[in-house]
Amino acid sequence: MPDKPSHFNGGRVLGDLNDLRGIGAYKTGVHKPTFSEPHMRSLQWLAQRLPEAGLSAEIDGIGNVIGASTRSGPKLLAGSHLESQNYAGWLDGPLGVVYALEAARVINADSSTNGAVEVAAWCDEEGHFGSFLGSRSYVGALTEDDIDAARDRSSGRTMRDALREAGLAGRPRARAEPGRHIGYLEAHIEQGQTLESGELKIGVVTSIVGIWQYRVTFSGEQNHAGTTRMSARKDAGVALARLCVAVDDRFPASCGPRTVWTTGRIVLDPGAPSIIPGRAEMLFQIRDDDPDVIVRLETLLRDLAAEAATHGRCTVAVERLRTGAPALMNAAFQQAIEAASAVFAGGRSVRMPSGAGHDAQVLATIMPAGMLFVPSIGGVSHHWSENTDDADIVTGAEVFVDACRRLLAR
Amino acid sequence: MPDKPSHFNGGRVLGDLNDLRGIGAYKTGVHKPTFSEPHMRSLQWLAQRLPEAGLSAEIDGIGNVIGASTRSGPKLLAGSHLESQNYAGWLDGPLGVVYALEAARVINADSSTNGAVEVAAWCDEEGHFGSFLGSRSYVGALTEDDIDAARDRSSGRTMRDALREAGLAGRPRARAEPGRHIGYLEAHIEQGQTLESGELKIGVVTSIVGIWQYRVTFSGEQNHAGTTRMSARKDAGVALARLCVAVDDRFPASCGPRTVWTTGRIVLDPGAPSIIPGRAEMLFQIRDDDPDVIVRLETLLRDLAAEAATHGRCTVAVERLRTGAPALMNAAFQQAIEAASAVFAGGRSVRMPSGAGHDAQVLATIMPAGMLFVPSIGGVSHHWSENTDDADIVTGAEVFVDACRRLLAR
Repeated sequence: MPDKPSHFNGGRVLGDLNDLRGIGAYKTGVHKPTFSEPHMRSLQWLAQRLPEAGLSAEIDGIGNVIGASTRSGPKLLAGSHLESQNYAGWLDGPLGVVYALEAARVINADSSTNGAVEVAAWCDEEGHFGSFLGSRSYVGALTEDDIDAARDRSSGRTMRDALREAGLAGRPRARAEPGRHIGYLEAHIEQGQTLESGELKIGVVTSIVGIWQYRVTFSGEQNHAGTTRMSARKDAGVALARLCVAVDDRFPASCGPRTVWTTGRIVLDPGAPSIIPGRAEMLFQIRDDDPDVIVRLETLLRDLAAEAATHGRCTVAVERLRTGAPALMNAAFQQAIEAASAVFAGGRSVRMPSGAGHDAQVLATIMPAGMLFVPSIGGVSHHWSENTDDADIVTGAEVFVDACRRLLAR
Repeated sequence: MPDKPSHFNGGRVLGDLNDLRGIGAYKTGVHKPTFSEPHMRSLQWLAQRLPEAGLSAEIDGIGNVIGASTRSGPKLLAGSHLESQNYAGWLDGPLGVVYALEAARVINADSSTNGAVEVAAWCDEEGHFGSFLGSRSYVGALTEDDIDAARDRSSGRTMRDALREAGLAGRPRARAEPGRHIGYLEAHIEQGQTLESGELKIGVVTSIVGIWQYRVTFSGEQNHAGTTRMSARKDAGVALARLCVAVDDRFPASCGPRTVWTTGRIVLDPGAPSIIPGRAEMLFQIRDDDPDVIVRLETLLRDLAAEAATHGRCTVAVERLRTGAPALMNAAFQQAIEAASAVFAGGRSVRMPSGAGHDAQVLATIMPAGMLFVPSIGGVSHHWSENTDDADIVTGAEVFVDACRRLLAR
């Protein structure tokens, strides 16, 4: 570890982010599914950088990268993730990891500061194999059975096979050491337009919304698309479409001010142009930070599904696949981010909930947690064209480093 | 060829059909995609039977099986197909082939009859690689370029590769010999409920409806399902669902008495639960025997698609992928089937259009053609549970053989 203090360096932050964009590049974004070759190379890249920040470097048995400090005093954990959605953006994940790395480089070498920033890259935040498997492993909420059952949603490859091919099988999984950290701080792009449209630079996250996910399956009667008269049909696809439209028309009167809902996938079975679909399935998601709103909307969803099924002479099953309680961000963390924003972002910050899920919600189950957002150009996210102004990236990094310093000094 | 006349044998017909069901069996149906091992084995099975009916046996360069007679006098061509839809019924295709085989066995050995029945099994009627490729090849409506471009719709395998692996590459393709045949007769299960609900045994097909097929593609904006507010969304999937419902609600007022329409496939892109679909595509089909109805409905489809796109702040493209003029069945063929039904089915026949496409519509472009239907239990089709009463199968076969005899005697 160098003895002389390292100064914050915005160019270094941009350089690191561009290095990571160069690994698995796709157009101006990246394609780095979990455990893909470019994902693994990105983990190695981070492991090689960590010693520069006075940290050890370990890639654990689930693909988390952990950089630990031997410095005395309080430890703040900071990070995000390095894999991407398919053909997605360059900042979703790497931004938070590089901010954490920069904070560690600046703070851990500074003899005037007590304690250290430790760095983590959580594996599979993007959910190729499951839901927050890396951070859940770290907080102790992932069993070996969970790993046995996990499969890549696209290819069906088991997580065990993927871990083996990545050379990680048999390694121990890193676990949080009780009392070691004063908390966890994560930075991320906003993935929405609240900051941009308000000409703001920093989002101080107050809570991370809960995500409820459903599979809705209509069953009708598979039949020939030429010989089955309209009056005799039980078309599961039409019933499903009717539910989508009913949700779009009826949810607004029952939702909260920030509720969102999405049908992200539809599959008609068998899916041939000359066959009336006998089965139709959709994945449906509701997000809100108020559990009462979710409960109300789930009831409405079930009612509308039943109406659509009756109208189409089909049956319907609504399965809840996933529930997520909203996670509150720690008040002292919010204050630290706000104070840092006052100095380094001209006070152009706003408190806001996060509509997206993040590893911070998992870490928040065992330690105080906070998040800050930087603006997303046009609010674009989960697409290769996702981007943030270089100046906003640097401002965000400076706020992040200062917030870390403030939290360690408390 | 035996000299003594062979008598019609219903048990032999049922035995042949069950032999074919045993090749590639799936539950009570079959799974025999075009050029799959069980499909090829079924072609071999037929080629081995043809000599019993006094016919040569050739599997040509596109997978058609042709059995030709050296007998003098008029020749009637008869047949259907041997491949199946995926995991589908045992009679869709084989019924017509086995009826033709039985007619050839009975008639070609009968010295009191002039001429012969020749047998054909047309390849890929079910459209795994294209649209009626086998029969179109036979009538001269398929170029080498068409074959170069054809691919399996499920696997993407090229037809050239499939032909090579099936051992058919380089073989000549059989072509219709002008003037050789007095016409083409095909039997098929009805795939609907007209016969069953009227307690009828034989459908005398008057025409085969035209099929118009469209790809409708909505383009919106791919974005994050958590962070993008409802008011900012351009969800291509919701726009598509709105079109499906609008079609279901508005087509009935503009359609004909037998028009049918189907959305058989929907794909949302990228199809992930946490991503708002930026693109949504559906395959849509309209069938009718009146081209004016189709034209009217296509206009309505385009209007409704534009409305749905505007409502969802998306754009839409409607592409016509396939048009099919209705094919009229020959009047003398209809009369022959009806006369045979009067003798062997107690007159329980009805004239009706075919809502499904069949190779007969392709053969009808170069020679007189006719079709007869037998009942389908519950109207079920394109599903492994498809079935017909054994007694109805035998009645249909007897009518078929007699209709062939009448046509050759004219």
